[in-house]
Amino acid sequence: MDTINFGAGPAKLPREVMCKVQRDFLNYENSGISVVEMSHRSAEYEKINNDAQKELRSLLNVPENYKIIFLQGGGTGIFAAVAMNLMGRTGSADYFVTGSWSSKAAKEASKYGKVNLVLPKTDVYTEVPDKSTWKLDPQASYVYYCANETIHGVEFPFIPDVDVPLVADMSSNFLSRPVDVSKFGVIYAAAQKNIGPAGVTLVIIREDLLGNPLPICPLILDFTVMAKDNSLHNTPPTFGVYVMGQVFKWVTEQGGVEEMERLAKLKSELIYSTIENSGGFYFTSVKAGYRSRMNVPFRIKNSELEPEFLKEAKNLKMIQLKGHRLVGGIRASLYNAITMEETQAFKKFMEDFMKAHK
Amino acid sequence: MDTINFGAGPAKLPREVMCKVQRDFLNYENSGISVVEMSHRSAEYEKINNDAQKELRSLLNVPENYKIIFLQGGGTGIFAAVAMNLMGRTGSADYFVTGSWSSKAAKEASKYGKVNLVLPKTDVYTEVPDKSTWKLDPQASYVYYCANETIHGVEFPFIPDVDVPLVADMSSNFLSRPVDVSKFGVIYAAAQKNIGPAGVTLVIIREDLLGNPLPICPLILDFTVMAKDNSLHNTPPTFGVYVMGQVFKWVTEQGGVEEMERLAKLKSELIYSTIENSGGFYFTSVKAGYRSRMNVPFRIKNSELEPEFLKEAKNLKMIQLKGHRLVGGIRASLYNAITMEETQAFKKFMEDFMKAHK
Repeated sequence: MDTINFGAGPAKLPREVMCKVQRDFLNYENSGISVVEMSHRSAEYEKINNDAQKELRSLLNVPENYKIIFLQGGGTGIFAAVAMNLMGRTGSADYFVTGSWSSKAAKEASKYGKVNLVLPKTDVYTEVPDKSTWKLDPQASYVYYCANETIHGVEFPFIPDVDVPLVADMSSNFLSRPVDVSKFGVIYAAAQKNIGPAGVTLVIIREDLLGNPLPICPLILDFTVMAKDNSLHNTPPTFGVYVMGQVFKWVTEQGGVEEMERLAKLKSELIYSTIENSGGFYFTSVKAGYRSRMNVPFRIKNSELEPEFLKEAKNLKMIQLKGHRLVGGIRASLYNAITMEETQAFKKFMEDFMKAHK
Repeated sequence: MDTINFGAGPAKLPREVMCKVQRDFLNYENSGISVVEMSHRSAEYEKINNDAQKELRSLLNVPENYKIIFLQGGGTGIFAAVAMNLMGRTGSADYFVTGSWSSKAAKEASKYGKVNLVLPKTDVYTEVPDKSTWKLDPQASYVYYCANETIHGVEFPFIPDVDVPLVADMSSNFLSRPVDVSKFGVIYAAAQKNIGPAGVTLVIIREDLLGNPLPICPLILDFTVMAKDNSLHNTPPTFGVYVMGQVFKWVTEQGGVEEMERLAKLKSELIYSTIENSGGFYFTSVKAGYRSRMNVPFRIKNSELEPEFLKEAKNLKMIQLKGHRLVGGIRASLYNAITMEETQAFKKFMEDFMKAHK
């Protein structure tokens, strides 16, 4: 049995992509050199850069009035960038805080303007609270939310309907389902969850939101500069962009985001049903309806069994399953690259473990 | 004959390193997964992160009161970061502008404080002007210089002697000679010239300079946060750090920075002497004493021959030799990974070309 990598990120990438990257590593398309040794000003890299955008544009039907840019600095970089690029309009922004990542995003944004919290303050993240509790400010420069909280396993089952530009962190569920891009001002994703190696972050931004960065915005986080220069203002993380482009191709070959959605539902349902059917042996705190299809955090009622669970899983080469320190327990991440077979193997292990330890 | 990659960056990396990275790409040290699929919180990655620092500390004898951190955003990111982290002391900084890169650094820094130019303003960069022309401000928060200007081929043959913390951009000559780190407040290098793939930037900073970032400094550029969290505040560019660590090991195996310096002198001397001995067929504008050992920009007196030179070179698989658009002509970059044999092959080609076209 091969290793099964349930890591939350950096995470498993499609085997076919990884094999191709390895095969071509020393000699990219007969250039005689590696893609990591290639000038970002070369025609070859320009094609890599443009092809990745083209493939993504086709995968998500990104409308023509949206720019696709590739940046560095991960989600944490974009936390600051979103505020520095968009806060200028009114000086304030609305943040949905539904887990650790949106909480961090709100905190970082508060360096650059006034941050309003849309939801009642809490540190227990198990759902998206009811619309009746939302406090939206019509003067907000934008409304921000995290479509999928990787740590807490809370996923928005809908797109919030708001009157100002909507900004979504889709780092951990990007390309896991179709998205109507036209509903958003900005969609972004750090690659290391579902689409590539750590070190590259993708931003899709509606053109009319460009042009108004705060004067203190560093060039590397300036959406306007990066869009104008086609993500080539400075040296981009070339290897990451290249691998990401290969992942986009792979998604297309698999049947696109519709197929990714179909599989994401099936895979996550396999695990959630095992939890539900365990008679309380396993449990998850996340409320039905808001459970992430990408990251399944769960506990064992007898928490002393959790280290044993992780150990036995590792013996079966199922790895990177430890829950984030903030929530403990176990977390199985089921990104696009995780196959049905791998998910079934994990489900079987969960059942076997329960039988042995009940 | 194999391809010879004289690119200025992203540039050739040592063949031995590239082969090892390829070999281990799908299965890092029997982990069953790729280094790009590995959590940055794993023990394996922690070791990669710590080993890279340890190796570099040993290579450059980095004193204990200096931190080594790994960031994203390239040199352009650090242009802003240096100012945001160090400008707070007095609100102004001194900049040596000796080429495009230091010019860009000064411009970016001026977003965050007052920038004084140490040298008389010019856009012809062919030397480091004499000390008698320098205007240093004793109140400057720091003095900044670019140790090697990749585009203009101007390299500092000395370390400026100043009374405030000294900041050096060593992106394109890092690890090409021994450096007395204790003379610096900050040394930084974007990896894609001499030490790794694009997407990771290394900063060596004296500890007492930490702790005073501007309040608007984004977390990803905050030296204090990154030093405290051992470059693991957020997901680092794991692949880049890993490859960079392998390059550090390779430099050690080759004989360290002393050996790199010996070879850098020999290699660059081979090319500069060919230019000098060409009777004016080839020429370089950079004044003797300031000529970069890493990047040799030169022209052909009859500039119409330059496209032919590049074409014939390419036929011999000598690639990425086109000069930067700002200076035109030809540029041969002779980073650590370029061998003596490769340099000799290029010298021979220069001589043959001259004979054929004189």
